[in-house]
Amino acid sequence: MAQKPSIPKGTRDFTPSEIAKRNYIFDTIKKNFQTYGFQPIETPSFENSETLLGKYGEEGDRLIFKILNSGDFISKVDDVTYSSKNSTSIAPKITEKALRYDLTVPFARYVVMHQNELDFPFKRYQIQPVWRADRPQKGRFREFFQCDADVVGSDSLLQEVELIQLYDGVFSDLKLEGATIKMNNRKILAGIAEVIGAKHLLIDFTVALDKLDKIGEDGVKKEMLAKGISEEAIEKAAPLFEPQGSNVDQLNRLDNLLKDSEEGQKGLEELRFIMETISTLGLQSAKLAIDVTLARGLNYYTGAIFEVSAPEGVAMGSIGGGGRYDDLTGIFGLKDVSGVGISFGLDRIYLVLEELNLFPEAVDKSLDVLCLNFGAKEALVSLKLVTELRKRGVMSDLYPSDVKIQKQFKYANNRKVPYVILLGAEELENNSFVVKYMESGDQITYALSEVDKFVATLA
Amino acid sequence: MAQKPSIPKGTRDFTPSEIAKRNYIFDTIKKNFQTYGFQPIETPSFENSETLLGKYGEEGDRLIFKILNSGDFISKVDDVTYSSKNSTSIAPKITEKALRYDLTVPFARYVVMHQNELDFPFKRYQIQPVWRADRPQKGRFREFFQCDADVVGSDSLLQEVELIQLYDGVFSDLKLEGATIKMNNRKILAGIAEVIGAKHLLIDFTVALDKLDKIGEDGVKKEMLAKGISEEAIEKAAPLFEPQGSNVDQLNRLDNLLKDSEEGQKGLEELRFIMETISTLGLQSAKLAIDVTLARGLNYYTGAIFEVSAPEGVAMGSIGGGGRYDDLTGIFGLKDVSGVGISFGLDRIYLVLEELNLFPEAVDKSLDVLCLNFGAKEALVSLKLVTELRKRGVMSDLYPSDVKIQKQFKYANNRKVPYVILLGAEELENNSFVVKYMESGDQITYALSEVDKFVATLA
Repeated sequence: MAQKPSIPKGTRDFTPSEIAKRNYIFDTIKKNFQTYGFQPIETPSFENSETLLGKYGEEGDRLIFKILNSGDFISKVDDVTYSSKNSTSIAPKITEKALRYDLTVPFARYVVMHQNELDFPFKRYQIQPVWRADRPQKGRFREFFQCDADVVGSDSLLQEVELIQLYDGVFSDLKLEGATIKMNNRKILAGIAEVIGAKHLLIDFTVALDKLDKIGEDGVKKEMLAKGISEEAIEKAAPLFEPQGSNVDQLNRLDNLLKDSEEGQKGLEELRFIMETISTLGLQSAKLAIDVTLARGLNYYTGAIFEVSAPEGVAMGSIGGGGRYDDLTGIFGLKDVSGVGISFGLDRIYLVLEELNLFPEAVDKSLDVLCLNFGAKEALVSLKLVTELRKRGVMSDLYPSDVKIQKQFKYANNRKVPYVILLGAEELENNSFVVKYMESGDQITYALSEVDKFVATLA
Repeated sequence: MAQKPSIPKGTRDFTPSEIAKRNYIFDTIKKNFQTYGFQPIETPSFENSETLLGKYGEEGDRLIFKILNSGDFISKVDDVTYSSKNSTSIAPKITEKALRYDLTVPFARYVVMHQNELDFPFKRYQIQPVWRADRPQKGRFREFFQCDADVVGSDSLLQEVELIQLYDGVFSDLKLEGATIKMNNRKILAGIAEVIGAKHLLIDFTVALDKLDKIGEDGVKKEMLAKGISEEAIEKAAPLFEPQGSNVDQLNRLDNLLKDSEEGQKGLEELRFIMETISTLGLQSAKLAIDVTLARGLNYYTGAIFEVSAPEGVAMGSIGGGGRYDDLTGIFGLKDVSGVGISFGLDRIYLVLEELNLFPEAVDKSLDVLCLNFGAKEALVSLKLVTELRKRGVMSDLYPSDVKIQKQFKYANNRKVPYVILLGAEELENNSFVVKYMESGDQITYALSEVDKFVATLA
């Protein structure tokens, strides 16, 4: 009895058409990464467990896929652990490797291992799949690609400026106009916590603030109170809940709020430099907006924080995010290497382009020419012709057997082939071939020696 | 105490230069796959265990990486199995998924699952990593890419012809001239086994014969004897051990040897058709050679068998292989779908190109222009210039801080940047920039408005 095949939940097969569209996005991102001077690296799909565990919090550890040791793995488990029947204690004894959970920790590991070969500042990009044992849901998969660009070894704010330009470049090339790049700075958040007297509750404060667009002002205040932030402190933070207004309005409001916080002023100065430089350079199609409620896994970032939202009217979470982190490689023993990076959310960008109908029309064209098969003799000459077309880079095929012509035409239609070649007995005799231009229905006869003439008619 | 980072044995980090070279090979293969009408698919990195297990023999099952179930995996093991402490019995209870071991079985699974959406003949290519818990050694890794092209749903021998042309096209584009495409046919091997009276020992016979170039004539004969093939049978097979000679010599010799085997004659007829058609069409740079000792995992193939060896003088195993298999999808319930395919050995092709110095010179160029940084004011104008260059697709960078110019030049040298731009106080005043052409040492001054003039000088 044959198996009825299936794939693991949360994973996907990709059809040729889906791959063509995904590659359109990947190639656009890659081209921009490269013109911005980023270089590609790749790391193994699995890392030693100790490289990954403990880097993503308790939930992360649980969601990391672990690979069972080969051979007699049970023999490595001591009797006490074995008889505990405790999965949590047994897992580390029978697994040594784990699937990549993101691209950032492997990148930090790479930088530390290769530090003597690298030229700093090192600008790397990396486009590879990651795996998470998350509960699958719409738009969330257990295997998905991340596209990251990071610079390590420079604390210049020009990097932040460049990364904003890079976002703008990619989204403009994708014709995805009107994306909003939201920006904040951890130092501003820390400054606010300081001036309202909640410095020791910085994380709670920002985690709550980050939910403003989800749970509203009342929800945020309620959560802050519950976390022990006083009514008085929340009152002082009132400007955060006002309608955000223009970037200039916000800078002024923050300037006022943060006048007694050195750290806050430092953050404001960074924000202002980036805003002003971008305003001098101009953006092609994206908007840059200050958003003081933006936090994104704050304990990670130390300076700028970015998040990109799709154009208004498209219901989609963020399509990109990033920020500056001052001690990424410290966990692997290399201190004082500042880094800043951004990431593109491939799956969501795909959905947005699909929704707005922004994929180029011919993006998934897979065949220019199909030559029909009229029998052994004709097929041999047809194959010669197809060989010539292929040498000229034309995606061409000969139908492999001389089944009914109707069936061959159906195949051509299904594959959306724009040009069908007919080379039957008559053409064989005349050393010619007929091209049927499928859209117009026109048929034109060429001599076999006129391959170049035909190729010149291809769009 | 920071961890000293490492990666699992048998896996690799890839540097920017290595990735550039690998992509050169991947892109060449992909371009050819596409001009031959193949379409890309991708399948998940892990499959349900039952999709993979039992498909690669006992050794394969052992070498498949299994993924530990999430959560309280021990609770799913029944007491009897648990107390056995037997790794082989416990493994299937605590793992449900396994990493892809090759691209062929997932492809068969894909075809069966998507049969109603596919247009047959379906020509697919797939370039993805696979994982094997093999003992790592030179040129053998636990994670490596496979590049496969297969056609399913056509038993036309024109497919075999095309696949030979495809090999030739790829190796010619890579300038790897003189590769030899060796060809055999399982029906010929079966015919020989039949006429020498060893039909029931076909596998043993061909496994031994396949080792001719490794263990020599005496070794092969000894192994055949050990497997129960009679001296008399081996005597009859003598023509196989003669120097192979030209393709015509071999066809004649086989014709004689196989005159009483219907299956053998069928194989010979197929071989002859393919040879003659290829000879009519011509090959660009590869050679096509009959090799009756070629078997390659015979129980898999049912018709043509291919293997490609690197040009003479390069000590390297096969750099590609493939063949026809008549019942690939049968294991998943779809009968009578014939397939034929070939595969490219990326890692070995890489080593051959490296050894023969065939990578294009600028293949790993990562930056066209580096603009030096002379301070905040100059940097802002420089960044404008760099922005203009990037818009024109020039890979450009601004050094992010105004460290000593000597250090910045060193960075330019390390990254092999051909053009360095200097925009200091004087240029700032004159609205100009100086380009240093690093190879010649020439310096040319351009006005800031002459970006296009400068870009025109780039190779």
